[in-house]
Amino acid sequence: MTDNPTQTISGRVGMVGAGQLARMTQQAAVALGVELTVLAESAEDPAVLAGARFRQGSPANIEDLRQLASLVDVVTFDHEQVDPELLKELEAEGVKLAPGAAAKLHAQDKLHARRALASHGFPIPGFAEASTIGEFDQFAAEQGWPVVAKAPRGGYDGRGVWMLEDRGQAEELLDSASGPFLLEAMLDIEMEIAVMVARSAVGELAVYPVVETVQREAMCREVKAPAAIDKGLAEEAAGIATEIAGRIGLVGVMAVELFITPGGLLVNELALRPHNSGHYSIEGCVTSQFEQHLRAVLDLPLGETSLTAPSVVTVNVVGGDSEDGPESRLADALAVPGAHVHLYAKQTRPGRKLGHVTVCGQDADATAKAARSAASALEGGFS
Amino acid sequence: MTDNPTQTISGRVGMVGAGQLARMTQQAAVALGVELTVLAESAEDPAVLAGARFRQGSPANIEDLRQLASLVDVVTFDHEQVDPELLKELEAEGVKLAPGAAAKLHAQDKLHARRALASHGFPIPGFAEASTIGEFDQFAAEQGWPVVAKAPRGGYDGRGVWMLEDRGQAEELLDSASGPFLLEAMLDIEMEIAVMVARSAVGELAVYPVVETVQREAMCREVKAPAAIDKGLAEEAAGIATEIAGRIGLVGVMAVELFITPGGLLVNELALRPHNSGHYSIEGCVTSQFEQHLRAVLDLPLGETSLTAPSVVTVNVVGGDSEDGPESRLADALAVPGAHVHLYAKQTRPGRKLGHVTVCGQDADATAKAARSAASALEGGFS
Repeated sequence: MTDNPTQTISGRVGMVGAGQLARMTQQAAVALGVELTVLAESAEDPAVLAGARFRQGSPANIEDLRQLASLVDVVTFDHEQVDPELLKELEAEGVKLAPGAAAKLHAQDKLHARRALASHGFPIPGFAEASTIGEFDQFAAEQGWPVVAKAPRGGYDGRGVWMLEDRGQAEELLDSASGPFLLEAMLDIEMEIAVMVARSAVGELAVYPVVETVQREAMCREVKAPAAIDKGLAEEAAGIATEIAGRIGLVGVMAVELFITPGGLLVNELALRPHNSGHYSIEGCVTSQFEQHLRAVLDLPLGETSLTAPSVVTVNVVGGDSEDGPESRLADALAVPGAHVHLYAKQTRPGRKLGHVTVCGQDADATAKAARSAASALEGGFS
Repeated sequence: MTDNPTQTISGRVGMVGAGQLARMTQQAAVALGVELTVLAESAEDPAVLAGARFRQGSPANIEDLRQLASLVDVVTFDHEQVDPELLKELEAEGVKLAPGAAAKLHAQDKLHARRALASHGFPIPGFAEASTIGEFDQFAAEQGWPVVAKAPRGGYDGRGVWMLEDRGQAEELLDSASGPFLLEAMLDIEMEIAVMVARSAVGELAVYPVVETVQREAMCREVKAPAAIDKGLAEEAAGIATEIAGRIGLVGVMAVELFITPGGLLVNELALRPHNSGHYSIEGCVTSQFEQHLRAVLDLPLGETSLTAPSVVTVNVVGGDSEDGPESRLADALAVPGAHVHLYAKQTRPGRKLGHVTVCGQDADATAKAARSAASALEGGFS
């Protein structure tokens, strides 16, 4: 026996934010013996309820971020909503961030990401930066109306995106919000796809299967793995994701969202964290995106990413009009054969992601049907 | 908005004990939105470190058990070490136990289990109860030496089992420990197998694939799913497990351990809780034993039990001479393709189960080799 008990922790990871991504990271951390500490606003946040160590604080307060960093080996993120300037400051102070501040900026600032991707020659939608009506006019003169305007920072699930039918709506937007805006033409999108890629600090790379993401009301509702696209296109998408990971110096996992258009693939957005489009990997891949993220940020070997079944479908559970949360309808969902239910312990609210269901199967249609049936039961609809 | 926030918990389960079984149950509880509270001796116990709610106390103290029960909808177990009389008392007071006290006794008292199984006509090894040297003599006269003596209560992983070569050793045992003992003849065992079965209070049943369990030094070291036995024998074993579950009024999951002998199947022991022989189900079955246990004790529909791959092998990680725990060697294990590592955050000690590794694959030999390689790396051996 010794006076210094043997270490029973294989690593200490700090996560800024404590939502469902941190919650599912906590589940993965338990298996690896990793201690996860989250910087959270409330002890009722999903990851804290799941048992992550809890440090109360705000991602906007550098002192809170410093406190988190002092407790852990590496700091990573549940979301994009941290001021990039604070991250640069922390890094200058010697805090190990994964991904680093410069890489993370590609997920925090859409204009920065577009410019960086363009400079490296990746295929992206035509875009412009606009702060004045003159700049809107110039873009519309080239691309025509309608024009899509996006806030470069802070948007998610359709927030911070405006569909402008004409010049009048552009003026209204400029009156109500301050620019600059990222402008895009309306695209002819055949399919939205996403690729999850992981990269560790030593440069090891692992890329996941290409998935189809189905959006409704600007929110991801379904993820189908693998995407029903031809092999060459899937390889091209995986190649783009892998190359971006290297170019920006990713550490951790990243979701690369792409559009399939008549002219080919276009990179839409990057998310440098576990992502909704990768939830299917918990049951559907050999290594889940959450475990992979922990492996990557801790410089551990990356895991296999292959599918565990021919078809894997994830359907989100989104809050509706019902005052009761999905917890009250769990039995109905579990009655669906093969349904893997994940609840996030969040208060229900219309349009809020409250959980998801994944089904692994042989046939894409049957798998999707089962996942929808269980998700619908949780939402209080008819299955 | 309402003053009474919507419930975000789908059930409250109390577990007596906070070891690795409770730890892995906690991971499953998070997904289902179930709140797990463990009665634990220490805040450093594996399930508490994983984030289960913590009630400090002893399973031997009825007041502590009552306190746990007052916080939850149903009380279940991480181990067998609770005085059956206390469980009867709690049940009489209206506490909902799953499994109930009468069912649980079949896992707590080997003599009770053998008598009950014999009375229902299940195939079991020949046995006798003995408290005196005369009773040992009588059994040896019928079966010959050596004789195996077992403590009816409290044994696990080979503790409480004595191999008696002759009358002299029987006398030594009687001098050193008090009976009664369960006596068995040495059996000609061709293979040890186990079947996990789940039963909910409403009587729904789900049986898992039959697995081979490989013991070394009286401790389970490897679990191979499915067991390489013929279909008829597997069906017989599954049928026995299912019938026992109904006969004893199981609620929750139960491991039924059986011997394959030249004369056929013999039921060895019952464990009315998640069990080492079912760890493979986390990645290897559609529904893990831990989620299944929660479903069963909360009267939720049971989940599918089929294998997710043709071959699934789990190898335990057992403490050896190294002073460093397996946490220090995690990278070596994760470098093995397909290795699913589960660490229990326990202090290392020779012979102590510190974790396990599961690999799912196409081929039984390759799968076993990979799992052994990762487990060996964690133990500090050569892979």
